[in-house]
Amino acid sequence: MSLAIICPGKDPSPWIKVIQRNEPDLKIQVYPEITDPDAVEVVLVWQHPEGILSNFKNLKLVSSMGAGVDHILRDKSISKDLPIVRIVDDRLTWSMTNYVVMGVLNFHRQIVRYQTDQKRKVWDMSNPEIPVKVGVMGVGALGYDVLDKLDYLDFPVFGLGFSEKEDFKFPYFTKDNIDDFLKEINVLVCLLPLTPETEGILNSELFGKCQPGTFLINVARGKHLVEKDLLQALDDGLISGALLDVYQTEPLPKDHPFWNEERIILTPHIASVTNPEAAAPQVLENIRRLNANEDLLNVVNRKRGY
Amino acid sequence: MSLAIICPGKDPSPWIKVIQRNEPDLKIQVYPEITDPDAVEVVLVWQHPEGILSNFKNLKLVSSMGAGVDHILRDKSISKDLPIVRIVDDRLTWSMTNYVVMGVLNFHRQIVRYQTDQKRKVWDMSNPEIPVKVGVMGVGALGYDVLDKLDYLDFPVFGLGFSEKEDFKFPYFTKDNIDDFLKEINVLVCLLPLTPETEGILNSELFGKCQPGTFLINVARGKHLVEKDLLQALDDGLISGALLDVYQTEPLPKDHPFWNEERIILTPHIASVTNPEAAAPQVLENIRRLNANEDLLNVVNRKRGY
Repeated sequence: MSLAIICPGKDPSPWIKVIQRNEPDLKIQVYPEITDPDAVEVVLVWQHPEGILSNFKNLKLVSSMGAGVDHILRDKSISKDLPIVRIVDDRLTWSMTNYVVMGVLNFHRQIVRYQTDQKRKVWDMSNPEIPVKVGVMGVGALGYDVLDKLDYLDFPVFGLGFSEKEDFKFPYFTKDNIDDFLKEINVLVCLLPLTPETEGILNSELFGKCQPGTFLINVARGKHLVEKDLLQALDDGLISGALLDVYQTEPLPKDHPFWNEERIILTPHIASVTNPEAAAPQVLENIRRLNANEDLLNVVNRKRGY
Repeated sequence: MSLAIICPGKDPSPWIKVIQRNEPDLKIQVYPEITDPDAVEVVLVWQHPEGILSNFKNLKLVSSMGAGVDHILRDKSISKDLPIVRIVDDRLTWSMTNYVVMGVLNFHRQIVRYQTDQKRKVWDMSNPEIPVKVGVMGVGALGYDVLDKLDYLDFPVFGLGFSEKEDFKFPYFTKDNIDDFLKEINVLVCLLPLTPETEGILNSELFGKCQPGTFLINVARGKHLVEKDLLQALDDGLISGALLDVYQTEPLPKDHPFWNEERIILTPHIASVTNPEAAAPQVLENIRRLNANEDLLNVVNRKRGY
């Protein structure tokens, strides 16, 4: 029995350190140095090369290195019978919420305006606050926490999801009422899972229904956003600015127009970063459960996509 | 009976509008056009010229246009028998807290680093968070709200005040334990009232006791900070950066070194701006109470200084 770690472009050493500290006897092989593929029963993956998992004929479990599994589900060569599990980490939620709250407050209190004024030595006390109403698309663990924290800070908040919900704590809209949702808000936060239904949802049609001047925060996946449509919406004044953490292609290509767009603040996919100290023990627990034939933790529903 | 408004350099028209809407019969005189000083029984002031209140021999009440009264108390010519009142506005607290939370999150998530990376087209995912522990000097209504909101966001928080407190909800230090307080924290928020005891408290001696790399947020009064000492502490690495809203001289003079200091983010005294819609009715209520010989609201304790 061996664990294969497959995460091209990402440093696996912090994971290996925690795993070896907790389970010194577990044999780990790191892609591309896989010398004994037949021994691999569990893979820990992030953005693995498509089709590669078919090399492991004794594979029993696929574990994501993060909360997202779209990078696994897009590989159609993976057997439908293989269980896929993901990381659920309170610290992921905490980081994500902090990032989004930062984005909301920076828009509300116009930090970029004051940075520009400072460069020009301008002292302008007028209109120090933009009133904000925040809409969060995606009301799972992450989206709910953002709504809860912003509500505690006494901002008006609104949620939008893809299923009916009863007794939701905050005003709630489904995708059938997305027009009404967009009319209520002027900060739009995308925290949806990436599924065929949500891919490209942030597009010209949606921006056209926003209140002019709406601020966009995308911390979900780059493929939620049609990037050229955002540039157009900025030029049309439908969107006044954006805070983006994810992109169609990552790292963002050097010639991408987002780099030079002053109305966009970019961060390099760091809104919420999985912490191996918290996550690796979850992987080991699932290996233990697999061997003991117990129910696995945080199993992904493939139909739902998360 | 007449109200005099004395606020050189500040536009009184939003106040006049709200007062006239609520009390159309109240006679208002605006400095420097005071034609009938003997009729003035109440003054509404912000940064009035020192000594000027002795022109009003029938004066019965001095009202600040904001939460602070240091601009009134420094005028030693004001009779000790005259009551001084200030504005208490939930919205002031809300704005102040949002501003401070924004500052804490921007330091924690390194917004300036990512803005610099964007300009240079650098994609650097390493170390996306600086762990923060926040200390708030001054635990009145404003400081307490900052502690409460940051605690809800799950940041470690510590308070420091000038009097003993029992059963305070958060770890609490008095000025006698300021060294221990500064050892606990790496974000220092100043929300103290300005009194002879607190003037210049943010100085080289204090910075020398901070954990190296501490981030400073001053939203209280410019005179809390010895400005040249901050520049020295930045150069010495004791302080890594600062978010400042108040200055020794306001507007900040064009030749002031803060404008060009990249480690300082400046805002033009807008962290919390008194809203005349909320504040003017408080002034009118105190005029009513004065005339009815009832207890006044929000009377300042001169000895305490707020």
